Amino acid sequence: MTPAVGKKATGLIAATFTPLTPEGEINLAEIGPYVDYLLEQQGVKSIFVNGTTGEGMSLTVEERKMLAAEWCSKAKNKLENVIVHVGCMSLKDSQELAQHAGEIGADGIAVISPSFFKPATVGALKMFLQEVAAVVPAVPFYYYHIPAMTGVHLRSRDVLEGIDAEIPSFRGLKFSGSDLMDFGQCVSYSPSHWSLLYGMDEQLLGALAMGANGAVGSTYNYLGSSVNRLISAFNKGDLTMARTLQFQVQDILCYAMDCGFDLAVNKQLMSEVSGLVLGPPRLPLLPCPQSKAVSIARKLKQVLGVQ
Amino acid sequence: MTPAVGKKATGLIAATFTPLTPEGEINLAEIGPYVDYLLEQQGVKSIFVNGTTGEGMSLTVEERKMLAAEWCSKAKNKLENVIVHVGCMSLKDSQELAQHAGEIGADGIAVISPSFFKPATVGALKMFLQEVAAVVPAVPFYYYHIPAMTGVHLRSRDVLEGIDAEIPSFRGLKFSGSDLMDFGQCVSYSPSHWSLLYGMDEQLLGALAMGANGAVGSTYNYLGSSVNRLISAFNKGDLTMARTLQFQVQDILCYAMDCGFDLAVNKQLMSEVSGLVLGPPRLPLLPCPQSKAVSIARKLKQVLGVQ
Amino acid sequence: MTPAVGKKATGLIAATFTPLTPEGEINLAEIGPYVDYLLEQQGVKSIFVNGTTGEGMSLTVEERKMLAAEWCSKAKNKLENVIVHVGCMSLKDSQELAQHAGEIGADGIAVISPSFFKPATVGALKMFLQEVAAVVPAVPFYYYHIPAMTGVHLRSRDVLEGIDAEIPSFRGLKFSGSDLMDFGQCVSYSPSHWSLLYGMDEQLLGALAMGANGAVGSTYNYLGSSVNRLISAFNKGDLTMARTLQFQVQDILCYAMDCGFDLAVNKQLMSEVSGLVLGPPRLPLLPCPQSKAVSIARKLKQVLGVQ
Amino acid sequence: MTPAVGKKATGLIAATFTPLTPEGEINLAEIGPYVDYLLEQQGVKSIFVNGTTGEGMSLTVEERKMLAAEWCSKAKNKLENVIVHVGCMSLKDSQELAQHAGEIGADGIAVISPSFFKPATVGALKMFLQEVAAVVPAVPFYYYHIPAMTGVHLRSRDVLEGIDAEIPSFRGLKFSGSDLMDFGQCVSYSPSHWSLLYGMDEQLLGALAMGANGAVGSTYNYLGSSVNRLISAFNKGDLTMARTLQFQVQDILCYAMDCGFDLAVNKQLMSEVSGLVLGPPRLPLLPCPQSKAVSIARKLKQVLGVQ
Repeated sequence: MTPAVGKKATGLIAATFTPLTPEGEINLAEIGPYVDYLLEQQGVKSIFVNGTTGEGMSLTVEERKMLAAEWCSKAKNKLENVIVHVGCMSLKDSQELAQHAGEIGADGIAVISPSFFKPATVGALKMFLQEVAAVVPAVPFYYYHIPAMTGVHLRSRDVLEGIDAEIPSFRGLKFSGSDLMDFGQCVSYSPSHWSLLYGMDEQLLGALAMGANGAVGSTYNYLGSSVNRLISAFNKGDLTMARTLQFQVQDILCYAMDCGFDLAVNKQLMSEVSGLVLGPPRLPLLPCPQSKAVSIARKLKQVLGVQ
Repeated sequence: MTPAVGKKATGLIAATFTPLTPEGEINLAEIGPYVDYLLEQQGVKSIFVNGTTGEGMSLTVEERKMLAAEWCSKAKNKLENVIVHVGCMSLKDSQELAQHAGEIGADGIAVISPSFFKPATVGALKMFLQEVAAVVPAVPFYYYHIPAMTGVHLRSRDVLEGIDAEIPSFRGLKFSGSDLMDFGQCVSYSPSHWSLLYGMDEQLLGALAMGANGAVGSTYNYLGSSVNRLISAFNKGDLTMARTLQFQVQDILCYAMDCGFDLAVNKQLMSEVSGLVLGPPRLPLLPCPQSKAVSIARKLKQVLGVQ
Repeated sequence: MTPAVGKKATGLIAATFTPLTPEGEINLAEIGPYVDYLLEQQGVKSIFVNGTTGEGMSLTVEERKMLAAEWCSKAKNKLENVIVHVGCMSLKDSQELAQHAGEIGADGIAVISPSFFKPATVGALKMFLQEVAAVVPAVPFYYYHIPAMTGVHLRSRDVLEGIDAEIPSFRGLKFSGSDLMDFGQCVSYSPSHWSLLYGMDEQLLGALAMGANGAVGSTYNYLGSSVNRLISAFNKGDLTMARTLQFQVQDILCYAMDCGFDLAVNKQLMSEVSGLVLGPPRLPLLPCPQSKAVSIARKLKQVLGVQ
Repeated sequence: MTPAVGKKATGLIAATFTPLTPEGEINLAEIGPYVDYLLEQQGVKSIFVNGTTGEGMSLTVEERKMLAAEWCSKAKNKLENVIVHVGCMSLKDSQELAQHAGEIGADGIAVISPSFFKPATVGALKMFLQEVAAVVPAVPFYYYHIPAMTGVHLRSRDVLEGIDAEIPSFRGLKFSGSDLMDFGQCVSYSPSHWSLLYGMDEQLLGALAMGANGAVGSTYNYLGSSVNRLISAFNKGDLTMARTLQFQVQDILCYAMDCGFDLAVNKQLMSEVSGLVLGPPRLPLLPCPQSKAVSIARKLKQVLGVQ
């Protein structure tokens, strides 16, 4: 069984936050409205769930299954692509999540490198990825590269070498790093049915120049509309406009960083901007003081010129 | 209910490897002989299970429970202390393991800092630890500090500040770092019922001088007998002998490092030295070529003067 | 006295190697031919001397003066811009070199952050820069940001804040980092008479998209002709061609890196490609085996399709 | 000509600060009183000049010569050992300083690894050291290992391998790192005429247990008297007393670190405690607010129980 060839992940893909109740339990009820918000308010048609932004590593296997199922269910007939991140520290847990993602009809699975024990070589990493992918050979597979979080600095280009043969379901890469030589080499090596997705929202324009097919990021939850315009401008050859829009994103993120931007702040910011009730993060992340998120949201509106 | 006060963890504590079958499944049958080996061949009376050496992070929650239960069962009436490591990336998983450790009669639980999402402050880390400890208030609690693995460089001394009130079951620290100022400050601050356990086997002597109460490490699986003599010499004031024994340990480890020492090699080395059949590591660790372990085992015997 | 406003550094700027005799002494005789080679064979009209590529930090103050004088002399009426790097660990040495650069008619001076003692704050770094610039207020001043070499990770954008008032001769930035958000923010902030020069040759295209005015790098010594075409293609809106040329540069550099690419190899490679006799590097760099440089030169010719 | 064999560097060696005038120029007049203070108030009989504490890298070659000459002159017939640090980024500068140190009768020279360009291998580092040592073959030579400052993490034990043959004047090591396995292996390998000097004052006790012959550090400028008692206690086998004294040093340094301890603060602290007028640091270090040094000095007196 071969994965459908035609459905290539492109454009903006929101890395979704995980809605929690004030008590810190999974809040499935917020997921339906979340999907509608992305589609209607941000023009975002694809999502990447249970990843870094979704606090996947802080969730239990059961919680991740519940979430993945609900995202797939609510996205059905609305969104184009639901990629479920199934990476864990434990290979067995990853395999269980991959199996489940296949059962619930996910459009793809993604796997990050384990980071407590780090693969010593590209070969070790690829064996890990292969063991997960093999569980669901018909589900499109994406490798998720994010060295600043994992401490795994193996070149993605080396991971891609010959991966077609090892993981026939391989369909692409979420590249969340600033090394555009490695990214460019991945673009240069990729056949046309792969998606090379860039994951550092603050410098997407550089990756588009290098040939990115799309982007996965947390800020597309609330800046999707703006970044969709950036991509359009870039595709039309209007680099001046694309740059202006990229600088706006940077202005907002620099302001946020100066305020102490982390995932907890990011999540609270999304609540502020969207009106969705996403709740607190889970420990070891500490809740963000609301005033901080309000202040960043105000900056965002000011920079974008919206009220 | 207060934890028993009298049973203070001291001396050598072996951080146990996890026996796997050739197919990579948990091999409970090897645990009984393992306990006997430590006691009879190495004079080691305490163990730390499912930690870094035990590949805890690569195991599922269910596997960790099975292992913890078997270690407690086989150690009963034989060993003095079984400390079960219950740290996970997910607080909920850690709580579930803590609950289980209490039910099976573990002598203590230990928790490492989560390392995918890293606590930004000492306060965040302590809230995480507290939430785990609170599940089993009668079980002695140990904090496990190992910055080279976690990337969490918060000072242990700051973690200890006022922890008695926050975690009444707090009983000590496994300190696997080279910062002996931080370690010394922990010793200096600790009441007599805490155990300050040092975790870098290659420089234990420095930590003993600084006031360590004991040591937790992987090499005590196969060098316990030798390091027991090191501790005796130190306690008798015979620094020359203690130093000679410490240098032997270093000679062996340097040789191993030059061969490419990692947890997989370490595990295979234990199989070679002990005759136990511990099996391969789990991905992302790659199995060690047997010849490498044989070569290190030969060096070990040569340095220790055993045949 | 104000620096001439009209002469803005743009396009490619070769970071020159320092020619040494086989005995390791400065070889001034090679500098004239070097200038001609850059101009005639590579179409490169500006140079950055005594910087990282030029092993500036391994030279004495007197050697740096001799070199700077010779480069300025030989470049006269031939090249557009000679920027002399005058950064040192010692402020006094930097000031002496700045004074000298002014005397010999350098078109600009550049200063790197000191890196043994690292400035703790942006303010400390700016005071250092200011003390150097003040010695020659009429000479255009560039700040040289290269965190991977210096370990100084202060944001360039923060360094630029208000720098016009503090250093009236400030004219731009050599940004040798992969953080395109910081670079983009510098572009966004810069008045039109500043030059924002990018310094990671392997991902120049990303920086051009972000608005770079030019590029400073070691590979422009031997890939200048090719990268000039890249810039032309980019300026004409032909991103496909620009990308193809960028990927060629990456192919060559990846091959070199897999061979063990460092400054010594880079220098020997330039000798191979150009026919100039640049000699060995100075300790602590070790000479590159010639076979390695030959092999990389062959790859370069193959990728570029030249014989 | 062979270096005198009998004069082995042992005990405490103060890494001296460099006295500057308020305008930032060398203040030679303070050096005589400085020598007397160390000898009379702290019982410190050896010094290490122009090193990290002395801001050697921020000084010009001429300034370093002036300072070295004055220290040697004022120490004559008073101190036991004056070791002049001659390490620079430039090999030629180091050689010039080594030559000068020999001429002024220094008891030894020390060389740090260059750190802008870092030696890629132990062999490259040793060639650099050898080229400096060869200039003054009769002057005892010390290698200065301080990876946190240089970023050079090559094992000292590997540097020592066979160094007797390569540098006949080799006499020892200033080891400013926390890796006591590497340090222990150096001790274990060293012939009796080498001095293994430890450089992290806050954990000296651990290094004494491992076999250190002495210690070089900045805090011995003002804590020498106290640490001399620590060493005496250790030598008499009174570990309890040694530990108490080590904990005092740690208490003071932890307090200082919480205040933001850097070399500038350290220098101002010495002025406060000693009454010497050492002046400001040089850029890129910023002067320490006096109130901060006063506060740390007060803590110091409180911990040591002096008024």
